[in-house]
Amino acid sequence: MRVSASLLQHGKKMIDKYSLYVPTSGVFPKGYKVGSIASGVKKGNALDLGILVNTNKTRKSAAAAVFTTNKFKAAPVVTSKNVLDTTGGVDIDAIVVNSGCANSVTGELGMSDAKAMIDVVNGKLGKENSTLVMSTGVIGQRLQMDKISKGIKDIFEKDMFGNDFNAWLNIARSINTTDTFPKLVSKKFTIANGKEYTLVGMAKGAGMICPNMATLLGYFVTDLPIASSALQKMLRYATDRSFNCISVDGDMSTNDTICMIANGAVDTPEVNEHSPEYEQVQSQVTEFAQQLAQLVVRDGEGSTKFVTVNVENAFSFEDAKIIAESISNSMLVKTALYGQDANWGRILCAIGYAKLDNLKSLDTDKISLSFIATDNSEPKELKLIVNGVPQLNVDEERAAEILALNDLEVRVNLKTGSETAQFWTCDLSHEYVTINGDYRS
Amino acid sequence: MRVSASLLQHGKKMIDKYSLYVPTSGVFPKGYKVGSIASGVKKGNALDLGILVNTNKTRKSAAAAVFTTNKFKAAPVVTSKNVLDTTGGVDIDAIVVNSGCANSVTGELGMSDAKAMIDVVNGKLGKENSTLVMSTGVIGQRLQMDKISKGIKDIFEKDMFGNDFNAWLNIARSINTTDTFPKLVSKKFTIANGKEYTLVGMAKGAGMICPNMATLLGYFVTDLPIASSALQKMLRYATDRSFNCISVDGDMSTNDTICMIANGAVDTPEVNEHSPEYEQVQSQVTEFAQQLAQLVVRDGEGSTKFVTVNVENAFSFEDAKIIAESISNSMLVKTALYGQDANWGRILCAIGYAKLDNLKSLDTDKISLSFIATDNSEPKELKLIVNGVPQLNVDEERAAEILALNDLEVRVNLKTGSETAQFWTCDLSHEYVTINGDYRS
Repeated sequence: MRVSASLLQHGKKMIDKYSLYVPTSGVFPKGYKVGSIASGVKKGNALDLGILVNTNKTRKSAAAAVFTTNKFKAAPVVTSKNVLDTTGGVDIDAIVVNSGCANSVTGELGMSDAKAMIDVVNGKLGKENSTLVMSTGVIGQRLQMDKISKGIKDIFEKDMFGNDFNAWLNIARSINTTDTFPKLVSKKFTIANGKEYTLVGMAKGAGMICPNMATLLGYFVTDLPIASSALQKMLRYATDRSFNCISVDGDMSTNDTICMIANGAVDTPEVNEHSPEYEQVQSQVTEFAQQLAQLVVRDGEGSTKFVTVNVENAFSFEDAKIIAESISNSMLVKTALYGQDANWGRILCAIGYAKLDNLKSLDTDKISLSFIATDNSEPKELKLIVNGVPQLNVDEERAAEILALNDLEVRVNLKTGSETAQFWTCDLSHEYVTINGDYRS
Repeated sequence: MRVSASLLQHGKKMIDKYSLYVPTSGVFPKGYKVGSIASGVKKGNALDLGILVNTNKTRKSAAAAVFTTNKFKAAPVVTSKNVLDTTGGVDIDAIVVNSGCANSVTGELGMSDAKAMIDVVNGKLGKENSTLVMSTGVIGQRLQMDKISKGIKDIFEKDMFGNDFNAWLNIARSINTTDTFPKLVSKKFTIANGKEYTLVGMAKGAGMICPNMATLLGYFVTDLPIASSALQKMLRYATDRSFNCISVDGDMSTNDTICMIANGAVDTPEVNEHSPEYEQVQSQVTEFAQQLAQLVVRDGEGSTKFVTVNVENAFSFEDAKIIAESISNSMLVKTALYGQDANWGRILCAIGYAKLDNLKSLDTDKISLSFIATDNSEPKELKLIVNGVPQLNVDEERAAEILALNDLEVRVNLKTGSETAQFWTCDLSHEYVTINGDYRS
């Protein structure tokens, strides 16, 4: 799976993203099993179908999801949303995901296909309304339901499930499309009452490639018991600060879905919105989601740089985010980063045209802008603008050093309040144009 | 001036933009003279300073302008706006424009410099408050006022003014920065009462290059008498349908300015908002502005294609425009156009994430999408989606033919109302990344 695109040359540097970002071991929550298979939809016997099943019987699980806001919603998005609406997110025991075909813009027939995928899994579980579905891949084509149904049945009938590292890495692989590496994160946390719980999750996406259109899918599961309303609130909070804060090309797909299941296999009181642990768990889930979301940016099509855009001391969180997003999506900022050009004018410009909620958020006489090195080199901070004034005699040599890093930070201090937002973005390279322009040629 | 970037190779095709888009003659309105000079700010003895003067004495002129909405406004933008506010747009007799330095993010000193440019011209005209100023070029640097002042004085003292084709082509050249060709349009019109009038105008811009940051400048002048309030209304209308409907990279600069002067040298009653000719003139000015704005897109950095995005039958004009803009700015649509890929999924996606004012504007079951050939080949229209349904068996050969054209149209029929908006965009090529990424290396 170490495809050539994961080895990107920039200047004299080679980045082997696979070695850097794919784990070699993990920790996995209690009460889940996962299985994956090459159903035949993708060519070359590649894994393209995965099922996660909750095996915990001590209590009913809670599930939550955040879906694309694109007005063209793919059939699996509509179908999964219906399941959550019907069940209130209670007692969901499976997630089934296929890659290679997005089942998007497929009309009524596509809706039946998404429903059929769920029904096959529900049949195997012997339970109605207990499965969520996601699809990613080519748009405007029907699912090959014969292959998908057979694949699902095989996973169950041949018991291809497991809960070890390989099972999890393979299911993370099975949801990939143009990704150059599988994105799997797992972590143990401790909450205030001393109980340990585990989170594992995966994501896919590397720009909104089309025909492989559907970009961003992700799900994570935990063995902590969390009430479904609290889970939905927590997932929305985390997504707003992670998957909704990344930019590869600013395009949003019809299939974007992030979902989470908490099966409660750990023996501890259920966490709800009023629990003393709520905020702690929310911040742990958020940090976890950020780690996963950042992997998507690191796999950004053709990208050679991972850039954290930090907007500090804003009048409101919303405006901090709008400014961070405007910088992160600017083609001119992205190309300057690729060219390792300390081009603060483009950043300032992108701040200036951001469509703010409140004019109080931006005072052009207060703003400061710096590049921050993320390695241990000094000085860490290179000031470009201080209180609205461009710094004369910026140390161009130091600027070149910082911009040559694979990881760097752009820091904007608005000094109009106390809110902070972060975005993670990547550069725009020749390789991006090649991948997206020459896709079918 | 036929720089190499104007000869872009795409596949086997070479486009000589200079030959195609630069006129070899023109028609010019009465009562104006223009002069330009190489002040020494730009290297290599390139023209970088131009002055337009109204010489008509039969009535007072009217002037109007539309400025950038970027929160970081360059000093000339603030200064020109002040002049218009003070005078109500009445009796403005000159426009002075320099290129090579944008006088942007230059603080109080930059404001004095912009004011000084105006003062030198006013001094020569012997009249207060009669000049507008624009600047374009490097950001964050002071104007070299010694060179600029001397240049302005030379143009007046050596009487370097003219009203012939060469004088107009040279002043159009003098406002260029990274443009590969000067953008000059002139045209005669007739109004209902049988009177003829003339419009001439110029623009610059080819993407928001930085340090040559300030992109879009343009001005046009006419000999028709138009009341200043009517002129402002007309210019806003025209700009909203021309310069505000073009996309090269979606970035908006700190210096963007479009202005217009009507000196009334033609002997006919003044046109105001209530004149029977108002609508006719407004539509002629709009068409003229569109022609000029389209030249900016044709010179889009690294672009190989000029694409008209036509959104028809929308519930509101605003939403038609928001959808047209979303398609025009999508990096994925732009790269697909570059790659000549009939990738309707990306277009649909960009429509789906457009931030509409009113949800009534988009009905996913009514939308139709086609590519339209702009040459005389048949069939002109290639239907991709009809009433929300992707067309099976799209003629890929015909799609490839249409996408190989340098000019093509993307047509979206929303069928939710009767409003129409157009945007003009270009593709995103390797060359764009090279120009913007490797600018300083």
